[in-house]
Amino acid sequence: SEVKKIAVIAGDGIGPEVVAEAIKVMKKTEELFGYKFEFQHGLFGGIAIDEKGTPLPQETLEICQSSDAVLLGAVGGPKWDNNSKELRPETGLLGIRKALGLFSNIRPAVVFDCLKDASTLKPEVLDGTDLIVVRELTGGIYFGEKFRREGAQGEEAVDTCVYNVTEIERIVRQAFEVAQKRSKRLASVDKANVLETSRLWRETVNRIAPEYPDVEVEHVLVDNCAMQLLRRPSSFDVIVTENMFGDILSDEAAMLTGSIGMLSSASLGEGSFGLYEPVHGSAPDIAGQGIANPIATILSVALMFRLTFGYEDAANAIETAVKNVLNAGHRTGDIATDKSQAIGTTAMGDLIVAEL
Amino acid sequence: SEVKKIAVIAGDGIGPEVVAEAIKVMKKTEELFGYKFEFQHGLFGGIAIDEKGTPLPQETLEICQSSDAVLLGAVGGPKWDNNSKELRPETGLLGIRKALGLFSNIRPAVVFDCLKDASTLKPEVLDGTDLIVVRELTGGIYFGEKFRREGAQGEEAVDTCVYNVTEIERIVRQAFEVAQKRSKRLASVDKANVLETSRLWRETVNRIAPEYPDVEVEHVLVDNCAMQLLRRPSSFDVIVTENMFGDILSDEAAMLTGSIGMLSSASLGEGSFGLYEPVHGSAPDIAGQGIANPIATILSVALMFRLTFGYEDAANAIETAVKNVLNAGHRTGDIATDKSQAIGTTAMGDLIVAEL
Ligand SMILES: CC(C)[C@H](C(=O)O)[C@@H](O)C(=O)O
Ligand SMILES: CC(C)[C@H](C(=O)O)[C@@H](O)C(=O)O
Repeated sequence: SEVKKIAVIAGDGIGPEVVAEAIKVMKKTEELFGYKFEFQHGLFGGIAIDEKGTPLPQETLEICQSSDAVLLGAVGGPKWDNNSKELRPETGLLGIRKALGLFSNIRPAVVFDCLKDASTLKPEVLDGTDLIVVRELTGGIYFGEKFRREGAQGEEAVDTCVYNVTEIERIVRQAFEVAQKRSKRLASVDKANVLETSRLWRETVNRIAPEYPDVEVEHVLVDNCAMQLLRRPSSFDVIVTENMFGDILSDEAAMLTGSIGMLSSASLGEGSFGLYEPVHGSAPDIAGQGIANPIATILSVALMFRLTFGYEDAANAIETAVKNVLNAGHRTGDIATDKSQAIGTTAMGDLIVAEL
Repeated sequence: SEVKKIAVIAGDGIGPEVVAEAIKVMKKTEELFGYKFEFQHGLFGGIAIDEKGTPLPQETLEICQSSDAVLLGAVGGPKWDNNSKELRPETGLLGIRKALGLFSNIRPAVVFDCLKDASTLKPEVLDGTDLIVVRELTGGIYFGEKFRREGAQGEEAVDTCVYNVTEIERIVRQAFEVAQKRSKRLASVDKANVLETSRLWRETVNRIAPEYPDVEVEHVLVDNCAMQLLRRPSSFDVIVTENMFGDILSDEAAMLTGSIGMLSSASLGEGSFGLYEPVHGSAPDIAGQGIANPIATILSVALMFRLTFGYEDAANAIETAVKNVLNAGHRTGDIATDKSQAIGTTAMGDLIVAEL
């Protein structure tokens, strides 16, 4: 079968450790399913700042642009937190999203059976929770003009939130399509009672909705959504929202599942290209100790196989292998009830590869 | 003792019903403690749109301006949801905050013993949760310039988020002062890794912090805060943040206590003047049935007595009376386990008055 090029961006903290296990899994699927991958490694985030003087070197961007998909570990850490804006890992993250046209971030928030108890929510409330947050990723206040100026009341800072109909349309359509493949319920989140961008957002959703008559649409104000996620998480199917609201709500949704160490995400543009990464961060406190949980990154590979390559067989095989290894009782420290029985990053990766 | 003028804005939905009970409580404290109140009623919100053609009539504003404090029920309802901006209750709410200079919204999120089970969080996680969100209320993206324009990609909407140091300083100082009277821990929430307004916010907090050496300051990114509120709610004491983040996080915090029908809030400016209101909304679905819970509004009176008038004795008496009535097992429908035993709005108000 055709060779697929995968850009591998290990990043900082535990990034390299979890990405190494994901690569083992991909190599195993080459054997098992006859797929062929070519991996190209790129520097990104803190390590790129240290070695190249910029969080997103041109070379790394080119590797991504010449690939079919990107696997990202995690970026950032206290070492770079006080750097000036251009020398911060986050700036690289915003830059790569924009440069690759990744306007849509898809984050499934599901509850893993073996982690039910890890949630701070009552099990009966959590029961059946399986939602996806579709977050607009290249617009809004993150990318609008920002500056300082002297005002009558002293120094002033300004951020600008801009959305045009085209940007809203494409993300909303994608969310409708995701919803059509699931339970056909779409919650569009905005603050239309206050913000002009939200009013344009809501109008656009309402204009597009008749094209997807099988999908039931609900408009939820962002403050109310922050509450309803807590009150009735299982009632949500697909949530679509703008960049900043999506940042906040997708983290809230991930945390309420209790499974944050296991969640994967996809950032997509037009076409099949995508960037895949675990939801968890670079966890500098446990980096280099070989104890990080590689499952979220391995599941990000399954997502890549499904959404970018259409390798449904391998995607399912990975997900099943992960489930079986967990059901057999194997746990990394973060998800172990009995920490003394916890296994390390490599051991977990090996078990999943063996189970495949 | 001196006559205190209280502007009473009953508003929409259940507003008039719960406000009536709060007034009964205030009248009882006149008897008991010798205080004197003069009530002036004003139209506001939906009912003002219907009767005066504007959500915030000049007359109502003048009543507030000539009062020592404002008691607000609730505003809004589906009837006005599709009105144009100038004819919406929310516009009145933003207008009154700005006109009265209420730059600070203080929302205690506490767990009522009798409602522990109402939370969707596990009791052991919730245990000891008692936090206050201090939200900036007259700045940021809510009040910045908003407009539409034609862009290269079609119609565009723009919202502007502006903060000056003076605005940030006054709310941050107030939060430090609230923290000093509590557990002396302040979490300042921003998105300083992306937003310029957040960077100015964080710089300002850091500049002011040395003036309050007894308060321990933590900076939390807004997305992380949405998670930490779920993971470790009891670890927070005072949270201070800008308008939009505060809108979202204060609702999340209120909901996680499970006690949202019981929570009160204060909106303050310079000096002792304040506007007090329950956290819950106008609940149009149960309006006019005499079943709404008046406790949040009655506790808002206690907050008014404490923060605006310094009537600590009456504030404590009200809070104790509420606690005793609940401990005796009396419940309105929203907080009753056995709904058939639930009492109505007036009955609950009467019991609290009697207990005083
Ligand atoms: C690091 C930051 C810029 C980023 C964001 O807010 O987009 C992160 O929080 C995320 O959600 O991927
Ligand atoms: C109605 C709306 C404008 C208001 C706000 O967001 O400020 C409300 O949600 C609140 O929190 O008081």
